[in-house]
Amino acid sequence: MKELSVIVVVADGLGDRPVPSLGMKTPLELVDFSSVADVVSKSAVGLWDPIQPGIRPGSDTAHLALFGVNPLNNYPGRGPFEAIGAGATLKPGDLAFRGNFATVNSDLIVVDRRAGRKILEAKQLVEYLNGNIGEIDGVKVEIYHTTEHRVAVVFRGEDLSDAVSDTDPHTEGVRVLEAAPLASSESAARTARVVNAFTKRVHELLRDYLVNTRKSERDLPPANIVLLRGAGKMVRYPKLQERRELKIERSVAISATALVKGVCTLLGFEAVTPEGATGGVDSDLIAKARVAVDYYRRGYDLIYIHVKGTDSASHDGNPSAKIAVIEKLLKAVSYLVDRVDLEKTVIAVLGDHTTPVMVRDHTSDPVPVMIYAPGIMADGFTKLSEREARRGSLGRLRNTELFGILMDYSSRAEKFGA
Amino acid sequence: MKELSVIVVVADGLGDRPVPSLGMKTPLELVDFSSVADVVSKSAVGLWDPIQPGIRPGSDTAHLALFGVNPLNNYPGRGPFEAIGAGATLKPGDLAFRGNFATVNSDLIVVDRRAGRKILEAKQLVEYLNGNIGEIDGVKVEIYHTTEHRVAVVFRGEDLSDAVSDTDPHTEGVRVLEAAPLASSESAARTARVVNAFTKRVHELLRDYLVNTRKSERDLPPANIVLLRGAGKMVRYPKLQERRELKIERSVAISATALVKGVCTLLGFEAVTPEGATGGVDSDLIAKARVAVDYYRRGYDLIYIHVKGTDSASHDGNPSAKIAVIEKLLKAVSYLVDRVDLEKTVIAVLGDHTTPVMVRDHTSDPVPVMIYAPGIMADGFTKLSEREARRGSLGRLRNTELFGILMDYSSRAEKFGA
Repeated sequence: MKELSVIVVVADGLGDRPVPSLGMKTPLELVDFSSVADVVSKSAVGLWDPIQPGIRPGSDTAHLALFGVNPLNNYPGRGPFEAIGAGATLKPGDLAFRGNFATVNSDLIVVDRRAGRKILEAKQLVEYLNGNIGEIDGVKVEIYHTTEHRVAVVFRGEDLSDAVSDTDPHTEGVRVLEAAPLASSESAARTARVVNAFTKRVHELLRDYLVNTRKSERDLPPANIVLLRGAGKMVRYPKLQERRELKIERSVAISATALVKGVCTLLGFEAVTPEGATGGVDSDLIAKARVAVDYYRRGYDLIYIHVKGTDSASHDGNPSAKIAVIEKLLKAVSYLVDRVDLEKTVIAVLGDHTTPVMVRDHTSDPVPVMIYAPGIMADGFTKLSEREARRGSLGRLRNTELFGILMDYSSRAEKFGA
Repeated sequence: MKELSVIVVVADGLGDRPVPSLGMKTPLELVDFSSVADVVSKSAVGLWDPIQPGIRPGSDTAHLALFGVNPLNNYPGRGPFEAIGAGATLKPGDLAFRGNFATVNSDLIVVDRRAGRKILEAKQLVEYLNGNIGEIDGVKVEIYHTTEHRVAVVFRGEDLSDAVSDTDPHTEGVRVLEAAPLASSESAARTARVVNAFTKRVHELLRDYLVNTRKSERDLPPANIVLLRGAGKMVRYPKLQERRELKIERSVAISATALVKGVCTLLGFEAVTPEGATGGVDSDLIAKARVAVDYYRRGYDLIYIHVKGTDSASHDGNPSAKIAVIEKLLKAVSYLVDRVDLEKTVIAVLGDHTTPVMVRDHTSDPVPVMIYAPGIMADGFTKLSEREARRGSLGRLRNTELFGILMDYSSRAEKFGA
C-alpha cells in the first residue's frame, strides 16, 4: 500500500461532562455538525484515554502519547515542560525545576509561599534575575515566568543530576530547605551545591531590589526568594523521522501554543504559527487550515493542527464560548476536507484531554475521537460527541494506541513480528 | 474544585456467569434493585478487570489494585498475604512461606503431602509449634493456620532473603527437600540454613507429639512435618496519605475479613469490624452502613465497605444465598445513599473479583461496577448486572484505572504533566 497523508486536528480540552445550564448536555452535543456530517459518517468513532483511564493528562504528556511516546515510561517531570511552555528551548541533560516566587523573613523562614500570588512585577523580576545571576560554578541559569507567582528554572551545564531534593518546604513557617543530593554521585552533590548557591544568590538580588521595596511599602509580601521543587532532567525523545518502525519523514505542527510547539519540536515536527492564530477563542482557524492544506500539497506526511480556544473557554467555565470555538473548528475541518484527496488521506479529530467547563481543569475523562481513513469500518454517526463516542466501534483506546492506528491506516507502521 | 468524599462498596466475588438453575441468568440479574434504582440511573456503569483480562485475582491482589497499587509490579507472593489473612501483622522485610502439614516416614520421604487433608488438631499443632520452636539463629518464627492442612510460616529477623528454594518437593514418594540459596548472597545462604533448621526442628517436635500419635493409631497419617513453598518477602506499600499525587488524609475500611483488613491496613486505612459483621451470609450489613455514615460525618476522605457473604455463597455454590446477600447489601447501599450528600460524594459499587457459583472459585471474568459522581455522564440503567455492565460507558477498566477515576471525580488526583 502507498503511504497516505495523516492530518490530526486537536481541539485542546475538547471533552466535557454534562452541563446543568445546557440541560445536562455537553457543549459538543450542542454543536452543529452539518458542515462535516459526511466525513463523520464515514469515520470510526470512540474514546481515547491519553495516558490511561483515571490519570489526568497534562497537555505535554497527552501530546507525547498522541504522537507515540508513552509518557509513563519517559517523562522527566513538569519542570522541563513548564519551561518549554514558557518559551524555553531545552536540550537533553538540561535540569529544570518548577519554582515559586515566595516571601521569606530575614531568617529565611517562609512567610508566604506564593508572595501574595498575584505578582504584577513578575516579568520585571525575572528579567532582573536573568540579567544578574550569571553562571554558578560553570552552570548557566535561566528563569522563565509562567503564571502568577510561578516560574520554571533551567540549569544548563555538564553532568547535572536530577537526584536533588526541593528547596521548597511545601509549607509556611519553616526555613527554606537546603537542596540535598539524593544519590551518592559527585554529580548529585555538585548539583545540590549549585542549587543552594542559586537560592542564596536570588535572595541577595531580590532582597534589596527596588520593585520589591515598593511592593513591601504597599503592604504586599515582597517576592524575595524563589523556591524550587521537582527536579527534572530533560530526556531525549526519538524524533518521528528517526523511528525505524515508522515511515515518517516530514511533519508539521500548526499551533500558537508554546508548550505544544515545544513538545512537537522535540518529537521532530516543524512548528509554525500562522498569522491570525492566537491560541485564544478569537483565533483564525481557517488560517490554520489554509497552512495545513499548503503543507499537505507539499507532501508532508503528518500534519498536526492544534486549537487552544476550546481549552481556554473550558478553563473560563464558558460553555457557549466552547461551542462557538468547536463550530469554528468544524468549519476549518470542512475547509480541509474539501481540499484534500479523501482516497489518500487519514484524518483524525479529537481532544488532547478533557477540560469540563464545570471543573475548569483537566480531568481524566476519555476524549471523543473520530478517525476517517480509506477502508475503515465506519460507525455511520453524523456527529461526534462524548455520548456517541461511548457507543463507537473504536472502543476505549489508551495512550500510544491511537497513534499506532493512524500510522497503520496510513500504511506507515512496520509489522511487529514475522 | 473542593474534594468530595469517596465511598467504595465491594461485594466480594460479586460477578458471576449464567447459572442453569436460574434459567441462565446470573444471581445479580435476579436481584431486586428497586431500593437503589435512582442512584444506579445516575451512575456510569462498566466492567473492571482487577488485574488484567485473563488473570484470576486473589482478594489481596484485587484489593491492592482497587486502591491504586498495581500488584503486577509489587507483590511478594502469596506467603505474606496468607499469613495476613490468618491474622498476622507483617512488617516490610518479614519472610513468609505457604506451608502444608504433611506426613513423612522415618527417612523423611513424603508419604502424604497433606497429612490426610482434614487435620482436626491443626490449631493445637500450630499452638504447640509456636510455643516450642523458639528462635533459630536469632530469627523469630510464627506459624499461622489457614485452612485444612495449610499454614503460613513467617520468619522475622535481620536481613532475610526470599531467594531460597522450597522444602516442599510438590510430589510424594521423595525426600523432603533442603532449602537452597537461589542467590550468591550471604543473606540467601543464611536464610536457607534457617529454613532447614526449621524443618528439622518441626519434625522433631511433631514426631513424638501425643496428638499425632493418637492420630496415627486411628490409621490417619500423622502431621509430622511442615513443607514450605513460595518464599516471599514483605514489601513496603506506599500509604494513601503518603502518596503525593493523591489528596487522601483519612481512610477507613469496614470489614470482618482478616485478609481485607490486613491489606487495607498496609495501605494506610484504619480497619474496623462493627458488631454484628461476621464475614458470612448472616452478616449485619446495615451495621456496616451505619459505621460508614459515622465516618462520613467525621469527614473521612475514603470509606470502604467490604461484604464477604457474596463470596462465601459463591464458594458454597449457592445462588439463592448469593441473591439474598446482594439484596441485603443493596439495602445497606440505600441506607447510605439516604444519609450522604450526593452533591459532595462519589460512590462506587462493585466486586473485587468474580466467583461464579458454578465454579466455586475466583475466575478472571471482569466484575460489574457502577460509579456515581456529581457530573458523571450517567448511563441511565436502573439496575447493575454483568449484562448491563458489558454495555456500560465505562467500558472495560483494568487494574489501578478504576481507583484513578474515583480519585479524579472526587478532585483528589494530581495532574500528570503540565
